[in-house]
Formats: sequence, structure tokens, C-alpha cells
Amino acid sequence: MRVEIWSDIACPWCYIGKKRFEDGLAAFTHRDEVEIVHRSFELDPNRAKGDTAPVIDMLAKKYGRTLDEARAMEEHVASNAHAEGLGYCTEGRDHGNTFDIHRLLHLAKARGRQDELLSLAYRANFAEERSVFDSEVLITLAVEAGLDETEARATLADENAYAEDVRADEREAAELGATGVPFFVLDRKYGVSGGQPAEVFTQALQQAWGERSPLKVIDQGGADACGPDGCAVPQA
Amino acid sequence: MRVEIWSDIACPWCYIGKKRFEDGLAAFTHRDEVEIVHRSFELDPNRAKGDTAPVIDMLAKKYGRTLDEARAMEEHVASNAHAEGLGYCTEGRDHGNTFDIHRLLHLAKARGRQDELLSLAYRANFAEERSVFDSEVLITLAVEAGLDETEARATLADENAYAEDVRADEREAAELGATGVPFFVLDRKYGVSGGQPAEVFTQALQQAWGERSPLKVIDQGGADACGPDGCAVPQA
Repeated sequence: MRVEIWSDIACPWCYIGKKRFEDGLAAFTHRDEVEIVHRSFELDPNRAKGDTAPVIDMLAKKYGRTLDEARAMEEHVASNAHAEGLGYCTEGRDHGNTFDIHRLLHLAKARGRQDELLSLAYRANFAEERSVFDSEVLITLAVEAGLDETEARATLADENAYAEDVRADEREAAELGATGVPFFVLDRKYGVSGGQPAEVFTQALQQAWGERSPLKVIDQGGADACGPDGCAVPQA
Repeated sequence: MRVEIWSDIACPWCYIGKKRFEDGLAAFTHRDEVEIVHRSFELDPNRAKGDTAPVIDMLAKKYGRTLDEARAMEEHVASNAHAEGLGYCTEGRDHGNTFDIHRLLHLAKARGRQDELLSLAYRANFAEERSVFDSEVLITLAVEAGLDETEARATLADENAYAEDVRADEREAAELGATGVPFFVLDRKYGVSGGQPAEVFTQALQQAWGERSPLKVIDQGGADACGPDGCAVPQA
């Protein structure tokens, strides 16, 4: 079974939802047969690269709240994170354009290090006050995730590198009807929207597993194939 | 869309079928939205590691033919390979246990180099008379495919490395009803058995694409999520 997870590094519910999904997955009988793919979704794609602002200021402005009210909103998210055993700093985090991070996550995917880099980037952003909008921080995270430093630098420096992969993920999210993140897609059959409780993920996994249907096999007689008893051969 | 391909490096129709599939894929409109995963299938899993024999001798024994008849069988396969523009040596190839090659292909998968290694291994085995049952040849191929030499050596040396991944692929093949290879699975909906003509693959891809169904979305009201307009927040 395959689970695709659309998310954005700037999305606190994606950070928390990843943990809740993992907990839900741990309680699923066939967890070892689940393959996970992370996909890109930018919350603020039109923001200029390099235009960053403290999250509290952004929240106050976006929702028309006072700074204290914005802080309370962050405290609410923090309490959810803490309940899942995750660190969460309510101050000192920036908000900005995440396109470059998504491009780097696609390099990591190509090198089999995607989940590692995403986990490290979430932790840096939400729990460690390390700015993921700083290229040098991203390079450090990439190396910690097991990527080659030269390749990671080349990817960040070339703004076209993996750009089309990010766009393709985003088009696919729109086609699937995802308007927010995190968005979990199970075998392209079920969608789970939001950082739901772990039990919801376990149930959805069980449901999708139970509904797997037999393949319709296309085998135009006399196919060229090999099996334990030998290969298709011309008649003697 | 995702296509999973079960195959064995020792299977000539897998080598030829891979090319036919790629040609069929090239004619498919949505080819850029197709992700390919290679999966393990051993044709001769009970053969002892290191027990290799020339293919012509194996064929003559297996099918009760003379050596000349076995050579004719290989010529038949060779003509199919040549028709696809592939090299094929009818003599000098060995047959043996492919478990180690499958383990190495799983390392390559984890590092994003699976298709590269599989293509190089097919070419070595079928077109270049380089024995894929020789560890040093495998290491050379792994490095050519972009893998780290030390990691490739460690994987081959540790017989448990990626062994469970090979077994899991084989269990899944059995569950899906695959008794021979190559076996192509499209979005876990269609199975295509054998190295079919390219047009069959194009048609199957079109059919599976056309039958993609909308997701059933599980969204228990008030989910914790973020969208372009902001994140779920507590009421003011």
C-alpha cells in the first residue's frame, strides 16, 4: 500500500499531523507493507523568495488580531505539538516562501533521504529556531539527512532544479481536490484531510487495505514471460 | 500513476519487456506523470548461491533438448532482443541465484538509482558477457549506477541487508497472482503479464489512466489543517 502525504514545511499541522500519522501507522497490522511518499504543497507560493517575517507578526496581520492574541494562537498549536511529544517554539520562527525547501526535498527523494530531510527540517523550523529560509541551514540539514553537500548546494543554486517536480506535485494536489495540508492519500483511493487523531489514520489504513481489489490482468495469450518452470520458448 | 514491474535479472523476457514497456510508455500522453518502481522476483530461488552454469547447458537440461536445439532457443530470444534494438549474446552467459542482485537493487532503490542499476545489470548480463554472479562485476555496476562503493560492498557482504525487502516483493507478487515475470502492475488496478508489444502497454496505461476514480475523503469536521488562507485556529 502506498500513502502520499502533501505538506508544507511552514505548516504546523503538517508537523503535528506527520507524528499523528506515524502513530496511527504503528498501530496498523500491515505497517511494514506501507510505502510513504512526501509531496509538495506551498501555503504561500506568491510570496517573494527572501521575504520572511516573524510568524507572530504574520498571524496578527493575517487574522486581524493583537500580538498577544497571535501568541495565544501559537500556544494552542504548541499544546497540540507537546501532546504528541514534539518540541514547539512559539517565538522566533519565520514565515516565508518554501519553494527552495520543496526543491531540496525532491533531491532528497531522488536519493532516498526524503523522510530524513523532512523530519530534520520540521524539527529545525518548529523546535529549534533554526531558520529553514537560510540556505546554509538547509545545506546543514541536507548533509545531516545524508545528502551530498556539493549536490545539495548545486540544487539550491539552480532555481530550475526539481522545480517541475514541485509544480507537478501541486497540480496533482489540485486534481485530487486538496485545498489544504496535510493531505494524506491512501492507494489513490482514500484521502484524509488534516492532522487527524492517530486512530483516524489507523482506521483509514485498515479500510483502504480491506478494499484492495484483485488486479484485472491483461495477458494476450502466448506472452513472452519466464516462470520457475522456464521461459516462453518456440515449439520444438 | 504508478507502475510496478516485477522482474528477474536472469529473465530475458524481462530485459526485452523493459524496453517494450519503455517504448509503450513513450507513446503515452501522461508519461511524465508515471512513476516506475522495480520489484524483485527470483526465477530460481532454491539454487545455491555460487552454483552457476552456462545458460545453453541449463536450457538443454531443463527442456530435454540437444545443445543445438538450446542454441536455437537462444537465437529466437536474441532475434526478439535485436528487433527492439537491444544487444544479446547467445553464448557465454551464466545462470544462477539472483538473490544478491535483488538485494543490491533494493539498496539502489533506497538511493534513487534503481532503474540505472537494473539497466546496467541487464546490459552486462545479456549484451556484454559480464557475469552478474561475480561480486566484483556487481560492485563495478553499482558504482557506474551512482552508488557509493563502500555501501555497495557492505550490502553484498551482509546477507541480511535488504533481504526482507526482496522477500516482501516476492510475497506481494504471489498475493497479486503473478506466477512469472515480467509482471507489470498499473496503479494496483491492472496487471500486464509478459513482455507484451509496446502498443499493449500504451493501451493499458491509457485504460488505467481513464479509470482513475475520485478520492473518498475522510475529513472529520474541524480537522487541524492549513491552507492558503491560513491554519485552523481556536475561536477568538
